[in-house]
Amino acid sequence: MTIKRLEAFSDGVFAVAITLLVLDLRVPDPEQLHGSLAHALGLEWPSYAAYAVSFLVIGIIWVNHHAVMDLMARANRQLAFINLITLMTVVLIPFATALMAKYLRHANADAHFGAAVYSAVMLAMGASFGGLWTYGAHVGKLIVPGFTEEELRRITRRFTAGTPLYVVALGVAFVSAPACLALHAALALFYALSERGVGMTRPAAAGDRPS
Amino acid sequence: MTIKRLEAFSDGVFAVAITLLVLDLRVPDPEQLHGSLAHALGLEWPSYAAYAVSFLVIGIIWVNHHAVMDLMARANRQLAFINLITLMTVVLIPFATALMAKYLRHANADAHFGAAVYSAVMLAMGASFGGLWTYGAHVGKLIVPGFTEEELRRITRRFTAGTPLYVVALGVAFVSAPACLALHAALALFYALSERGVGMTRPAAAGDRPS
Amino acid sequence: MTIKRLEAFSDGVFAVAITLLVLDLRVPDPEQLHGSLAHALGLEWPSYAAYAVSFLVIGIIWVNHHAVMDLMARANRQLAFINLITLMTVVLIPFATALMAKYLRHANADAHFGAAVYSAVMLAMGASFGGLWTYGAHVGKLIVPGFTEEELRRITRRFTAGTPLYVVALGVAFVSAPACLALHAALALFYALSERGVGMTRPAAAGDRPS
Amino acid sequence: MTIKRLEAFSDGVFAVAITLLVLDLRVPDPEQLHGSLAHALGLEWPSYAAYAVSFLVIGIIWVNHHAVMDLMARANRQLAFINLITLMTVVLIPFATALMAKYLRHANADAHFGAAVYSAVMLAMGASFGGLWTYGAHVGKLIVPGFTEEELRRITRRFTAGTPLYVVALGVAFVSAPACLALHAALALFYALSERGVGMTRPAAAGDRPS
Repeated sequence: MTIKRLEAFSDGVFAVAITLLVLDLRVPDPEQLHGSLAHALGLEWPSYAAYAVSFLVIGIIWVNHHAVMDLMARANRQLAFINLITLMTVVLIPFATALMAKYLRHANADAHFGAAVYSAVMLAMGASFGGLWTYGAHVGKLIVPGFTEEELRRITRRFTAGTPLYVVALGVAFVSAPACLALHAALALFYALSERGVGMTRPAAAGDRPS
Repeated sequence: MTIKRLEAFSDGVFAVAITLLVLDLRVPDPEQLHGSLAHALGLEWPSYAAYAVSFLVIGIIWVNHHAVMDLMARANRQLAFINLITLMTVVLIPFATALMAKYLRHANADAHFGAAVYSAVMLAMGASFGGLWTYGAHVGKLIVPGFTEEELRRITRRFTAGTPLYVVALGVAFVSAPACLALHAALALFYALSERGVGMTRPAAAGDRPS
Repeated sequence: MTIKRLEAFSDGVFAVAITLLVLDLRVPDPEQLHGSLAHALGLEWPSYAAYAVSFLVIGIIWVNHHAVMDLMARANRQLAFINLITLMTVVLIPFATALMAKYLRHANADAHFGAAVYSAVMLAMGASFGGLWTYGAHVGKLIVPGFTEEELRRITRRFTAGTPLYVVALGVAFVSAPACLALHAALALFYALSERGVGMTRPAAAGDRPS
Repeated sequence: MTIKRLEAFSDGVFAVAITLLVLDLRVPDPEQLHGSLAHALGLEWPSYAAYAVSFLVIGIIWVNHHAVMDLMARANRQLAFINLITLMTVVLIPFATALMAKYLRHANADAHFGAAVYSAVMLAMGASFGGLWTYGAHVGKLIVPGFTEEELRRITRRFTAGTPLYVVALGVAFVSAPACLALHAALALFYALSERGVGMTRPAAAGDRPS
């Protein structure tokens, strides 16, 4: 088991999970339509909003996943296990997306619960992703050599920053489901576009792993 | 994040999205069949036509996506983001295909609206794909060196030609849904077979990117 | 567009299509169960038989697809187009499998028609696959150099042998749907296990393509 | 057909199959909800438990599949065929998971039968996976040179250890479906975390295969 293999398999899972999001978008049954198709689709706006947010989220995790893997010099059994747990949470996202979207307009306790499940899945994903980096960098000592303490701290902050924010989103879910979705959208856009959110380059000081 | 990684992930999404089109083809329930199975399937002709057209379209985008990526010397955060938006529109295609097909035979405002949604998704796809090239070539200056101004203009014309045609298709949707589907079919066949539609080779003048 | 890219994309489509076959296996609704679960699943035997046959068929096409691609020195637009048509027929297989399986036990004209659609999809797949080889070897002259006329004839026979057999299966469909499925099973096993059915090695005389 | 190709295709199938597990998680229909959404999801606990177990199982098979393939110096037709049969059992796992989960709470003969089908699919998977190694190492003599008899025996024990355990699980299914699921969970965790369960490294003595 090499890092390369782990990455290739994870890439496949990310690609399938992000594409399965489209299955959450339902075509209304012509025979059950009340009013026009445009009206029926308009009522489904939470599905489209949730689709866009979850698509961004999975895209961002994928980029960050590569950034983490790229810093590992080698893999071991524990890293492969934590990676599998991370993928298990990523694959839950299409389910959590459909759940939140279907109940969002109900504006009752079920809507709150749906948004809370969505936030909980994101939290589990963020936490296991943070665990992937923390294990590789600090516990298993699997990273490429050459990082300073300061660099390690900076990267650790970046890859674990999501977790407390998802705790906040989980709290917001119980106040307002649409506000919770909007918060997830804002987080995703911030991560997608900000320099701090996504790692694209390798610290220059880091040694190369044999590829 | 390298161009190679971006391509491999995008390839996975294209392959899954094109294959999910088959889920739009429904097997009639034997207990709800009025008349013969052949008759019931015959009524589903819009699904088969839309399947073929969307399959061609995704296949063509995939080829053109490679042609664009192949001209990029490197990636950055912005390119990765525009690429994610492009994939987000590609993954919508199976949904838009099912929507158009299910309402096509109704020959009413809903049929027009379904065809308009399909055309709008194609337009969004064409526009974000054009944006991918435009950003990479003109804004982010990420392309391989060695192109003349004239070559750049020619390639830009090729990769942004789809957008105005999809605007026309969007207009036709409100006149006739079957005519709109036929127009998409004609566009796809033209792109698949014509020299101008799909780029297979790299301009000889362009330098090589380190691979 | 290189042969390698064409192969990688096709591989993805084959892998997704073969896995989507599992979606044709339905879990009976506990509340609609007449009798035991074992009995209900027993009635679904055509789905399991069709799953196994279609899985073998897609596996075999995949192997043969590689054998063909491995003999091509380069790709062009036409080859990419024929390849896309071939993939379009492969992706139809999960739909055709579900259709045949759902009507097989009805033992009426609909069962015959379902088996005929399945055979027609196989025929289209076999014909476009044969076209892929024929175009590459004889029309587009894309194959690696070094084949003798005799070798070319032998390979052509092998890669186009399926088409007449699928015509026979299409005829059998109108006599008996189970016999038609049994014939497809026999063909798949023959192809999977016989030396003549599947090409694993490259003729020694053939030159190497630059990889 | 090379080992590398066989691995890449198998990787794709593993990635799709593991991700399709999410389709077994159903979003309750708001209009059919008795009580709260939280209550309705709580009743679905067997689906979540089965999802986690099956995700681990497919992840482990994937790791072990690489370990086996990594020890093969070359492929032949028979190995490709046994590999296809192994993939056929892996792709059945999402179906078997949904089946077991849907009937688990019924606590009757159907629950036992569902758990038995799940165990039987695992048994078939374990047996064909054992067959893959046994054929490659002992029958087809396809493995890399340099193994001692003792090393071969040790690896054979490891890669065929699952089969008798799945026979036990099959027996437990007829006693208690939840106990059967718990046993599968225990097996998966043992395999995921124990040194004996999953092979990550190649015996040092083994020669290298040309890559």
